[in-house]
Amino acid sequence: MERVKTGIPGLDEMLQGGFVPQTANLIEGAPGTGKTTLGMQFIHHGIVACGEPGLILTFEEFPQQYYRDSANFGWDFRHMEQEGKLRIVMTSPEVSKADLEQVGGRIEKLVEEIGARRILVDSLSHFERLSENSAHLRAIVYGFVNALKREGLTAVLTRENAALLGETEETDDAIAFLVDSYTLLRYVEIESSIHKALLVLKMRGSNHDKGIRQFEITSRGIEVRAPFEGREGIMSGSPRRMVDSFVQAFVRR
Amino acid sequence: MERVKTGIPGLDEMLQGGFVPQTANLIEGAPGTGKTTLGMQFIHHGIVACGEPGLILTFEEFPQQYYRDSANFGWDFRHMEQEGKLRIVMTSPEVSKADLEQVGGRIEKLVEEIGARRILVDSLSHFERLSENSAHLRAIVYGFVNALKREGLTAVLTRENAALLGETEETDDAIAFLVDSYTLLRYVEIESSIHKALLVLKMRGSNHDKGIRQFEITSRGIEVRAPFEGREGIMSGSPRRMVDSFVQAFVRR
Amino acid sequence: MERVKTGIPGLDEMLQGGFVPQTANLIEGAPGTGKTTLGMQFIHHGIVACGEPGLILTFEEFPQQYYRDSANFGWDFRHMEQEGKLRIVMTSPEVSKADLEQVGGRIEKLVEEIGARRILVDSLSHFERLSENSAHLRAIVYGFVNALKREGLTAVLTRENAALLGETEETDDAIAFLVDSYTLLRYVEIESSIHKALLVLKMRGSNHDKGIRQFEITSRGIEVRAPFEGREGIMSGSPRRMVDSFVQAFVRR
Amino acid sequence: MERVKTGIPGLDEMLQGGFVPQTANLIEGAPGTGKTTLGMQFIHHGIVACGEPGLILTFEEFPQQYYRDSANFGWDFRHMEQEGKLRIVMTSPEVSKADLEQVGGRIEKLVEEIGARRILVDSLSHFERLSENSAHLRAIVYGFVNALKREGLTAVLTRENAALLGETEETDDAIAFLVDSYTLLRYVEIESSIHKALLVLKMRGSNHDKGIRQFEITSRGIEVRAPFEGREGIMSGSPRRMVDSFVQAFVRR
Amino acid sequence: MERVKTGIPGLDEMLQGGFVPQTANLIEGAPGTGKTTLGMQFIHHGIVACGEPGLILTFEEFPQQYYRDSANFGWDFRHMEQEGKLRIVMTSPEVSKADLEQVGGRIEKLVEEIGARRILVDSLSHFERLSENSAHLRAIVYGFVNALKREGLTAVLTRENAALLGETEETDDAIAFLVDSYTLLRYVEIESSIHKALLVLKMRGSNHDKGIRQFEITSRGIEVRAPFEGREGIMSGSPRRMVDSFVQAFVRR
Amino acid sequence: MERVKTGIPGLDEMLQGGFVPQTANLIEGAPGTGKTTLGMQFIHHGIVACGEPGLILTFEEFPQQYYRDSANFGWDFRHMEQEGKLRIVMTSPEVSKADLEQVGGRIEKLVEEIGARRILVDSLSHFERLSENSAHLRAIVYGFVNALKREGLTAVLTRENAALLGETEETDDAIAFLVDSYTLLRYVEIESSIHKALLVLKMRGSNHDKGIRQFEITSRGIEVRAPFEGREGIMSGSPRRMVDSFVQAFVRR
Repeated sequence: MERVKTGIPGLDEMLQGGFVPQTANLIEGAPGTGKTTLGMQFIHHGIVACGEPGLILTFEEFPQQYYRDSANFGWDFRHMEQEGKLRIVMTSPEVSKADLEQVGGRIEKLVEEIGARRILVDSLSHFERLSENSAHLRAIVYGFVNALKREGLTAVLTRENAALLGETEETDDAIAFLVDSYTLLRYVEIESSIHKALLVLKMRGSNHDKGIRQFEITSRGIEVRAPFEGREGIMSGSPRRMVDSFVQAFVRR
Repeated sequence: MERVKTGIPGLDEMLQGGFVPQTANLIEGAPGTGKTTLGMQFIHHGIVACGEPGLILTFEEFPQQYYRDSANFGWDFRHMEQEGKLRIVMTSPEVSKADLEQVGGRIEKLVEEIGARRILVDSLSHFERLSENSAHLRAIVYGFVNALKREGLTAVLTRENAALLGETEETDDAIAFLVDSYTLLRYVEIESSIHKALLVLKMRGSNHDKGIRQFEITSRGIEVRAPFEGREGIMSGSPRRMVDSFVQAFVRR
Repeated sequence: MERVKTGIPGLDEMLQGGFVPQTANLIEGAPGTGKTTLGMQFIHHGIVACGEPGLILTFEEFPQQYYRDSANFGWDFRHMEQEGKLRIVMTSPEVSKADLEQVGGRIEKLVEEIGARRILVDSLSHFERLSENSAHLRAIVYGFVNALKREGLTAVLTRENAALLGETEETDDAIAFLVDSYTLLRYVEIESSIHKALLVLKMRGSNHDKGIRQFEITSRGIEVRAPFEGREGIMSGSPRRMVDSFVQAFVRR
Repeated sequence: MERVKTGIPGLDEMLQGGFVPQTANLIEGAPGTGKTTLGMQFIHHGIVACGEPGLILTFEEFPQQYYRDSANFGWDFRHMEQEGKLRIVMTSPEVSKADLEQVGGRIEKLVEEIGARRILVDSLSHFERLSENSAHLRAIVYGFVNALKREGLTAVLTRENAALLGETEETDDAIAFLVDSYTLLRYVEIESSIHKALLVLKMRGSNHDKGIRQFEITSRGIEVRAPFEGREGIMSGSPRRMVDSFVQAFVRR
Repeated sequence: MERVKTGIPGLDEMLQGGFVPQTANLIEGAPGTGKTTLGMQFIHHGIVACGEPGLILTFEEFPQQYYRDSANFGWDFRHMEQEGKLRIVMTSPEVSKADLEQVGGRIEKLVEEIGARRILVDSLSHFERLSENSAHLRAIVYGFVNALKREGLTAVLTRENAALLGETEETDDAIAFLVDSYTLLRYVEIESSIHKALLVLKMRGSNHDKGIRQFEITSRGIEVRAPFEGREGIMSGSPRRMVDSFVQAFVRR
Repeated sequence: MERVKTGIPGLDEMLQGGFVPQTANLIEGAPGTGKTTLGMQFIHHGIVACGEPGLILTFEEFPQQYYRDSANFGWDFRHMEQEGKLRIVMTSPEVSKADLEQVGGRIEKLVEEIGARRILVDSLSHFERLSENSAHLRAIVYGFVNALKREGLTAVLTRENAALLGETEETDDAIAFLVDSYTLLRYVEIESSIHKALLVLKMRGSNHDKGIRQFEITSRGIEVRAPFEGREGIMSGSPRRMVDSFVQAFVRR
């Protein structure tokens, strides 16, 4: 099957080649785990390696912040925008939603104008202010996500998770059920240091790697490494050494 | 006793042949655990192997999504619909409820039209918006479920569970008490990887396998495998190695 | 002392012969743990073995469901009803409460009509909708329970517990304080399988067995077996192997 | 110092002789732990062994229930009442509070009438309905407790605790701060059985035994036994074997 | 630096001599941990050993209670009050606040009248009723605390903590941020007994002992002993034996 | 890259030289962990070692408190203010926000007046009272933080965390997502003593040290030491000894 490569070493392999085209892909993590970096890398790779122009929809940060942040990885977003391969649009959830609901809205025009194939929505968490009714909010996000797909876009949607270590006790999370894939970025404490873990929990219509992999943010962007070894309870954020390694130490004696 | 086979290797065995006819069967799980796949497989098996036409009631996804998703497993839902063996109906909880309350409502007509014997309700979670009063909601769901049974249908009802690992602290769950069977799909972290577990917690009027079994979503649908071994606390999502294996390692020395 | 036998092998032994006459006995458990089965067995045993007619008060299920469910255990509730030894009454908490408050209400008449000595109230959880004020609700349940006793009935009251494993964090549970006995049915995960545990926590005016016993639902109803062995934290739902067995393994070496 | 003996073997020893005269003593526990039994034993011992008449204030149960319950331990409360050494008064928190606020109220008269020296208030939990404002409720209870002391009474106040095992997450408990002593009755799971534990947490103006002691309800009432041994985390309700016993098993080898 | 000695053996050593003059010092603990005793000892030591008269502000207990409680330790508060070295003032948070806001209020007059240098505010928890808005409450307490300092007083402020073992999940605690020192009194279960632990968590403008120390309430007041040894997780209230002692037992073999 | 040195031994090394210029840096911790000390040290180092004047914005404490607190470390803030290198401004979140929104507001004037390059905002927690709507509050803080950057300032923003040990269950924390770096100060219990831990969780646009480091508040300010060793679960506040050290003890035998 055709795939939309993220260009992130290790992640495309986990996704069996990349995202499925025209899908909505949720990337969730605590502050500093690299959600936006992952999304920018996805956009950058599309433009540079696949000839697929991209859109970035931001609800808080100015385009300048993306220019600066991308420059840290050697990606020239300002230049790409000048060349008509990228548009960074600062808007609000209210406006974006309205744009996509009407024929020929602003987003539709931008898609046509630069022939966009990819979009980064940074972050979906801002949609939460659109409704206090969770069923209503779900319907809004579902409509928004489907509109992106109708435009032919493959989307990376970031979402903020306030839990620094381990999982929150989400009692009302509907978003994860309506996206096509769901990737978790998490902090893990091991040997007095904080590591980063990536897990693809869900991928609709495709098999995928179920491992919990280490990753780092390097000067070239995100790099996904090997799975954690010899630890139990990684997703708790505070794993224990496995009894195995303990036993082996004895046995080797 | 006559049983309604799900056609899922391993699950029918756990259910001692399949679901009891004309019962409501709850399948609950986190995003990506395979609730809808299990339900589609149940519908597909009814049509293909048992000559039992089926209905799919959806409150969010379009029929096209089911065509696509089923195609991943080699099931041609579009064709089955054309042959009059399947109806995928996108509706709302409000309308479904009203349909079943009146004589000769839309659902009743569809059942008669194709001679439906099975139904997938995907997902029951959408009913939660029908009432904020839990006693009232319970009465609605109970009425809906009974109406399905009166139509002679055996039902698979999916339900979303927001907890990624382990159980939520449900303080107000009435649904599990009024269905005839209750199956849990759960994520379990073992050796730096996420596995899937299936447990039939409850089955009214029948014995059933109490094991916590591993399962996978393959290109042929869901396949239930052997129970987990040598682990304590599987339902917590983060099991510990059992002391047994530790002791054995010593003893074997 | 005279006792009201439940007819459940093992349970009567734990209760030192059975329930105390004219008491209210709470049976609480998660979905599928066998609360209703225990209650039906209590009613069935009264009719068949003790010559004590019985009432079943149901607030949700139709009498047909009890006919079906009891038939699974070889108990013919329909026939018993025809013989005037059983009445299954589908009603509402509102009506039941009013019935018992007036002289010669419906329940009083039924008691007189068949000479009922036992009652199953399935389930007390439905009373929760009668008041949002916990002190008021407590007074209602207390009045209801006392009225049953005044009618000379020994009552089994089922109650739903939404926690699948371990205990809920009940912060406002008054019912357990006003009943005469309190029995917990719980799920326990051991070696990748779900077992059922029964514990008589409280029994007013009598000694009782304090063990946490395994039980099963067989074709003859509930059967209470031996206590769990070699496990700590059974009531948590996820017990640990005890260090003892670990030590013994070493010592036996 | 003069002490008010409870007559409970083991408890008076823990209290260094008994309660301090004219104090309010809180006894808190889950359903079935024996709060009322402890209180009745305190009243019974006063009448029979110390020549101190007693009052029982009940807000829910009828006097008949106390006659029955006390009879289980061979205490004839009905007879004592006839002899003018005991008064069991069923009332409401509203009335009790008003009674104590006015000069020559009903409680004051009863105290004078029988020369009462002890009182059992069963249970203080019913006061919670007097106010939803916690500061106001605290003031009410403080006033009530002080009025009892002014009448020259030594009081046992029972309080219900909904947590079956371990502690509740009390965030707003003011009562324990204003009483003179605070005794906890708790369930503890050990070796597949439920045991009962008693702990005197607080005793104003006196030293006391800090041990967590086992106790049982026998045909003679409550009997306090030896402390638990070789267990950690008893107050969690689910103690672990201590590493000590583990080590000793090795060392003894 | 000059210090205000508490006179409590062990505590002054932990505080590097005592409290810093004209500071607000928070003492927090569960019922019975000895908050008021610590505060009375601080006042008593000031009067007897340092020639520093003291004030006690109480919002619930009558002065008589302080006379009685102090007498248990051989401190004659009634006499000290007669000698003009102590004033025990029963008031309300509303009045205290108003007193300190106006020039020449009652508290200011008392300070001048007896030349008070120390104050015990027992307890600060009663201030919580002054506002339901946490920012407003914070401002009130901050104003109150500063007013005490302006009067030249060194203050001990007690605060109630409802958690019997371990910490509460405080989500809105602002008080600890605005005081100058913060000392925790906690219960700790060790070997089937309840011990008391003291920890100075914070001390502005000074170094201090960071150990978790055992303490007892003796006939001479509070005595702080050695730190706990060989235990992990003391502040959880239910510490585990450390693996160290386990290892040592093996090694010594 | 140019960096803004904090002057704190160890921290600058962790930050790869210091903060990135014109960024907002969040320092979060429980009471007494040293948030304000860290902020004052940052301001002091700017003035004394880098020729960068600084501003302190305080919403609760008076400038006198900062004079006193800084004097403990030998920093003469009063003198620096007289020399025009420092301004300590006591204000309110409402006023600060308004100041920064208008051209030539008070803060802008102060920046110009002393040529301020650094700012300490102590503490950001006071902003929480500006709105009960979390999306609105987020927009306010974002606007405030950006205004500081526009003034050319590098900011340290302190934030209060009420959890004494371990993490709070934050369900609505948006601030950590919009700052440029996020540093956690935490208490950790080890061997019956409370230690302090520092962790740089996030640093936008730069690599940084991911270790969990010990730190102390000495007479020279904050000093960051080596990482913790041989412990698991440090961020829980109650770490366990690692199995490693256990094994090593055996192996070395």
